[in-house]
Amino acid sequence: MPVNLAGLWVPIATPFAATGNVDLPLLVEHGKRLIAEGATGLAVLGTTSEANSLTVDERRAVIDACIAGGIPPERLMPGTGSAAIGDAIALTRHAAAAGCAGVLLLPPFYYKNITDDGLFAFVARLIEGCGKFTPRILLYHIPQQAVVGWSLPLIARLREAFPAVIVGMKDSSGDLSRVEQASVFGNFAIFPGSEAKVVAAMAMGAVGCVSAGGNVNARAIAELVAVASKPEAAVLQVAVNAVRAALGDRTLIASVKAVIAAQTGHPGWRRVRPPLLELTETERVALLAEPAIRALLPMPAIAV
Amino acid sequence: MPVNLAGLWVPIATPFAATGNVDLPLLVEHGKRLIAEGATGLAVLGTTSEANSLTVDERRAVIDACIAGGIPPERLMPGTGSAAIGDAIALTRHAAAAGCAGVLLLPPFYYKNITDDGLFAFVARLIEGCGKFTPRILLYHIPQQAVVGWSLPLIARLREAFPAVIVGMKDSSGDLSRVEQASVFGNFAIFPGSEAKVVAAMAMGAVGCVSAGGNVNARAIAELVAVASKPEAAVLQVAVNAVRAALGDRTLIASVKAVIAAQTGHPGWRRVRPPLLELTETERVALLAEPAIRALLPMPAIAV
Repeated sequence: MPVNLAGLWVPIATPFAATGNVDLPLLVEHGKRLIAEGATGLAVLGTTSEANSLTVDERRAVIDACIAGGIPPERLMPGTGSAAIGDAIALTRHAAAAGCAGVLLLPPFYYKNITDDGLFAFVARLIEGCGKFTPRILLYHIPQQAVVGWSLPLIARLREAFPAVIVGMKDSSGDLSRVEQASVFGNFAIFPGSEAKVVAAMAMGAVGCVSAGGNVNARAIAELVAVASKPEAAVLQVAVNAVRAALGDRTLIASVKAVIAAQTGHPGWRRVRPPLLELTETERVALLAEPAIRALLPMPAIAV
Repeated sequence: MPVNLAGLWVPIATPFAATGNVDLPLLVEHGKRLIAEGATGLAVLGTTSEANSLTVDERRAVIDACIAGGIPPERLMPGTGSAAIGDAIALTRHAAAAGCAGVLLLPPFYYKNITDDGLFAFVARLIEGCGKFTPRILLYHIPQQAVVGWSLPLIARLREAFPAVIVGMKDSSGDLSRVEQASVFGNFAIFPGSEAKVVAAMAMGAVGCVSAGGNVNARAIAELVAVASKPEAAVLQVAVNAVRAALGDRTLIASVKAVIAAQTGHPGWRRVRPPLLELTETERVALLAEPAIRALLPMPAIAV
């Protein structure tokens, strides 16, 4: 049931070894640490995870490594969307068969100006292709990257057609009116795609958030989500937002990885896959010197 | 050498069987017919081919089936781009190893606001990943779909860094000033991504076109490209453009397939893969009744 999904889900960054391959042991270690810090689960293979820069085999291997490494599948909500329906089926089916809590489904994102009827056909074919492995799908709306998006009328149609499958949405548009409108569906797990407005979103019916910032600030965000309806939430929201603002937007993924590298003492964490680029040394030093970020690092703060 | 590439390259539509699988024999038959009608070669696995709706294995199978079916690899210019560098390497390497004339390379198209440095790193890693199978790459610029594009300063940098590899570009932006600017590179095969302005583009230095319309109108477009610098080109351009205009823009791929179905008497050609949709019956009847389209069909024209 969607209600079990409530909380912070972290779209965990994907570490790369010097060879360029995914560093699976490091990824699993990171995921376990975040759960220990209070994350409900891991939205592996999301945008922050560079999932669309990985092959289907690499994506399957991430899911398998997490489970083999001791992370329960009900703590995993992998991204399984793809421009190619065959890839989306293979990944969604794999996640459902493994018992994952749900999957985050991007719309097919190559062609633009796609109709809602076309997206409906894509989802229907996907569900059919999963056969006996019925997935629990959260529709992933991130128009900044995918351009193609899930409209609210389409979400309503999909819920009506597939009530046991379409269980929620992740909305990274930043448009809270979508959260408010989707809340009328009922029994529908809504996650804003950032912690920045999570208190306001939860007041409208969201059940938590899926947040890149959770990679470096899981404890505070999990606490914020837990107390969202209480008076102390306002102050915590401000603190959490200071970290998020320091991470920036344009180089968010590289920044998250630079902070994880500093937190763990493992410089390999800085690596990204093209077309993304690591932070320059100047950018990295400036980021780690931001007070909100410095407070997350294990080193004692430098006196100023 | 790029000069060998001159002419019409058709981004051939991909037929699907009733099972949803690629109908490889039908695809090969279509490709051979287009070459017989005057196309220089086949830009298989392009946007019109729904290539990004196919898995990597399906894309490899298209290349292999063409060659096994008797289409010489020097008549093939497959699309090998992907959001995932691993997939782009696998496909580019496969095409180069098979002896294809070149490959059309989309930029990685999931993340937006990517820097030229990031795209440069992607191409450099791709070429490295091809190892001894050096590809001949034509950069494929189609901002309407990919959003991410190849800027002219980046193209110049890539040519400078990889002169034996970066041999041309396909430009579907419709912006002729890009053709004009790229023509100064010299020894660089420029193809506009449509036949609609091919005469003007060739006057600026383009060597032909890669055109969806070639799927249904190859003979006329090949003739137009052959006589582009002569006085009779103007009249032919008008005739070719009437077909293109009738095919429309919003449902171009479904329209192309509907016309191929009518030309070949094989209704299976109408199938598309989600998120695209077939034309409705009303749309299809209206399209086939357009005078410019009716003239391409084997049936005698209905008296009006």
